[in-house]
Amino acid sequence: MATASSGVQKLLQVGTKIVAVGRNYAAHAKELGNAVPKEPVLFLKPTSSYLENGGTIEIPHPLESLDHEVELAVVIGQKARDVSQTTAMDYVGGYALALDMTAREIQASAKSAGLPWSVAKGQDTFTPISSVLPKSAVPDPDNLELWLKVDGDMRQKGSTKDMIFKIPYLISHISSIMTLFEGDVILTGTPQGVGPVKVGQKITAGITDLLDVHFNVEKRRRPGSY
Amino acid sequence: MATASSGVQKLLQVGTKIVAVGRNYAAHAKELGNAVPKEPVLFLKPTSSYLENGGTIEIPHPLESLDHEVELAVVIGQKARDVSQTTAMDYVGGYALALDMTAREIQASAKSAGLPWSVAKGQDTFTPISSVLPKSAVPDPDNLELWLKVDGDMRQKGSTKDMIFKIPYLISHISSIMTLFEGDVILTGTPQGVGPVKVGQKITAGITDLLDVHFNVEKRRRPGSY
Ligand SMILES: [Mg+2]
Ligand SMILES: [Mg+2]
Ligand SMILES: [Mg+2]
Repeated sequence: MATASSGVQKLLQVGTKIVAVGRNYAAHAKELGNAVPKEPVLFLKPTSSYLENGGTIEIPHPLESLDHEVELAVVIGQKARDVSQTTAMDYVGGYALALDMTAREIQASAKSAGLPWSVAKGQDTFTPISSVLPKSAVPDPDNLELWLKVDGDMRQKGSTKDMIFKIPYLISHISSIMTLFEGDVILTGTPQGVGPVKVGQKITAGITDLLDVHFNVEKRRRPGSY
Repeated sequence: MATASSGVQKLLQVGTKIVAVGRNYAAHAKELGNAVPKEPVLFLKPTSSYLENGGTIEIPHPLESLDHEVELAVVIGQKARDVSQTTAMDYVGGYALALDMTAREIQASAKSAGLPWSVAKGQDTFTPISSVLPKSAVPDPDNLELWLKVDGDMRQKGSTKDMIFKIPYLISHISSIMTLFEGDVILTGTPQGVGPVKVGQKITAGITDLLDVHFNVEKRRRPGSY
């Protein structure tokens, strides 16, 4: 057990990319005024944005808040390219709970200018993530309750059964576009209830009956002016 | 020499991200009808999109062509976070020539829908790249001639002296947004003359007096239907 567990923990260290899915829950697409997509909306986050459980999410200057998006993370266990939906689950190494922190104002300006989301989504500490659950601990990934609280108030609660594009489809589709390597992560989208967190607030989040995480929120301090 | 050279070659294997700069040459911004940006336009490409010199660029179904963008790649030599412009060059490990291959139709639809560029820019073989030149071989990175030919016809020729945001600024700016790790790559933007390449054509490109590369272009073959 110890070996299996440390094996899956290592996955996040060897991974090279995070492929995130936008608008994968109909109720969330609607709350941001977006259409439900015909194919997955995909964007990349860098692994430099990971933050371990217990860490501090940093709000960069001059922003006053970041939006929380609680998501199921699928951790890839072996190289995947052009895999079919029927074999897709063989490429899963484990699962984690992640927050896709988003600078919503930056994303809104990027969207209206037709520009990429990388700065809105990719800054350091913008992907808080739990330890990795081995696949064997998650027999039914399509029926997990995800929840997120800010200062103890429930803000998001949803079930992965409401994902528009399910895990086998996502792995097959993404692997037809880009090779997934061991340790790469797919963020599967967020249920409704996204909203801002500010300096001094605390986020708790979890997968019911499986794990929970907690993060502080502070202003990012930058070294002297340059 | 052999040790130094294989040392820098290894950088691309250990890197975890490619941070690409859009619209960093005024003449290229204009040719695509875009304004010259006030701050760098940044987007991410995955390292799974690398293609070694001599390889085959694959045009995915149902596209008929991809656009070529020849760019100077700056390869990071050590972890960089919040570095100043004055120390930025200390974090450079080497340089390479890269092509930022772009599915322009996919990018155009993404731009008009306010969606990310990841699928337009991030597919396998979309970042052909040369071997890494050690920093010592490139005393003046701000004065390099980049060129690209399709079937022997010159399509792009430009100088890095025309970059709007220079390398020290880019490293400082990007490192204020996300930590750069050893082996990460910054693609510094393309000079004017971008355009389509089709199945059966050959691309040659280079940095005058320093190196050159060549790539074939074929239709991507996907395994059986799924
Ligand atoms: Mg990456
Ligand atoms: Mg999200
Ligand atoms: Mg480019």
